[in-house]
Amino acid sequence: MTKFDEATQAIRVDESTYDVCLDPGYAIGGPLNGGYLMAVVLRAVVDSSPFDHPVSTTSQFHRSPAAGPARVVVEQLKAGRTVAFSRATLVQDGVTQIESLVTTATLGDAEPAYADKAGYVMPPPEECLKLPDPKPESNMTLNARMEMRFDPPTVGWLNGEPTGRPESRAYFRMAEPQDPDPYVLALAVDALPPVVFSAGARGWAPTVDLTWHLRALPAPGWLTLIGGGRLISDGWFDEDVEVWDSAGRLVAQSRQLARVGRG
Amino acid sequence: MTKFDEATQAIRVDESTYDVCLDPGYAIGGPLNGGYLMAVVLRAVVDSSPFDHPVSTTSQFHRSPAAGPARVVVEQLKAGRTVAFSRATLVQDGVTQIESLVTTATLGDAEPAYADKAGYVMPPPEECLKLPDPKPESNMTLNARMEMRFDPPTVGWLNGEPTGRPESRAYFRMAEPQDPDPYVLALAVDALPPVVFSAGARGWAPTVDLTWHLRALPAPGWLTLIGGGRLISDGWFDEDVEVWDSAGRLVAQSRQLARVGRG
Repeated sequence: MTKFDEATQAIRVDESTYDVCLDPGYAIGGPLNGGYLMAVVLRAVVDSSPFDHPVSTTSQFHRSPAAGPARVVVEQLKAGRTVAFSRATLVQDGVTQIESLVTTATLGDAEPAYADKAGYVMPPPEECLKLPDPKPESNMTLNARMEMRFDPPTVGWLNGEPTGRPESRAYFRMAEPQDPDPYVLALAVDALPPVVFSAGARGWAPTVDLTWHLRALPAPGWLTLIGGGRLISDGWFDEDVEVWDSAGRLVAQSRQLARVGRG
Repeated sequence: MTKFDEATQAIRVDESTYDVCLDPGYAIGGPLNGGYLMAVVLRAVVDSSPFDHPVSTTSQFHRSPAAGPARVVVEQLKAGRTVAFSRATLVQDGVTQIESLVTTATLGDAEPAYADKAGYVMPPPEECLKLPDPKPESNMTLNARMEMRFDPPTVGWLNGEPTGRPESRAYFRMAEPQDPDPYVLALAVDALPPVVFSAGARGWAPTVDLTWHLRALPAPGWLTLIGGGRLISDGWFDEDVEVWDSAGRLVAQSRQLARVGRG
């Protein structure tokens, strides 16, 4: 069991209740990373489902839970022959932190009937950038959990040279060796710096809601995260992330609606 | 009040309950259209919210409700200064038909800070195709509610000439004159023939879940629906639809996960 597996463990208390312990090692400043929190929720949902994989997850982020004990309350709304529908609530101190709807199913490994291979072509990893370690006082503990190599233009904002477009792209793997699985993918879809940083925005960009789809089980090795957005308007932006595995398959698609930071 | 406004009316019974009457005029064969059902749900959600617009909606389609009376049960999970989170359940005969999470806010009309104008360029409407009226026995009553003009290659499947890619594109407006609003957009994001028809699949392609984001309030006039998909695998496909208004603004983005028909 890796540290990530441990940090996302959900211990069954009864049919609908799971105890979890939110790990301070997944912080991005004050709050814990939303992808990490979704992984915790999904452990409970999948444990309570007759199916193996969270094929679709939507989470509303109501509050930022603190590190420490919390509960996931799962309600199975309907289980059919190939698909089950669940509602899951992450609760801390009796208060809802995250509300989710999750569709579970069991994915096979058949060859796709159709796969769009078109997409952004990343430079090779050796031409991509590792970012400097964050200052300890910034409490970006998440960074030490992941290894990322960034497509250089998309981190130009670090040196005052944003590209002017919402975009963020990187190779990704866990720092502790671990093959990617659906829980790692939940982390990955929310692991990039906000795409709006490349468009010149700065500061905390809170996710309001995030939907992601698991499309295939990822092969071992590096994942490639391709993040972009279509519109920044009225303080809102969309962030789309595609996750490709080392075998060149699209394994996850996400879209989040978030607020532009004021920082 | 248009017929669509009437068909989507939600009458407040108490703080959390709305009576609705599902209109047989929105059928696609046996079932009612998912976009129409979302519009009904959203009427109740917005009525119960302090904010005006459903900026994000995720619906799980558990069952196909019949035309006739039903209820929407809304629970407001959290209302903040700029955003409210709701859960809404469409219930018929005591059984959940559709489960939704909705984020509401009030959108302004400021100029976007960034807008990606890149996208598929449609041929002019006069080069696009109106489809023949469906046979009455097919019970495609929805078709008479909408006017659509299709990008010719994306309806080649009708004559046995699918393009080989998941795609579906059309101009769209209501048959009864009505300016588009968020409820019309809920209909629009699920109005195209399934994108997999262009990839050679046929038959009923049930939506499992659908998430759509309202990005701006649409200008009067035709909407343009650009539908595509990335992967058809293991009986699952994604359908992404962008909705552009007559002023060239991206007004809605949707993604649904659906099952390939066996027909």
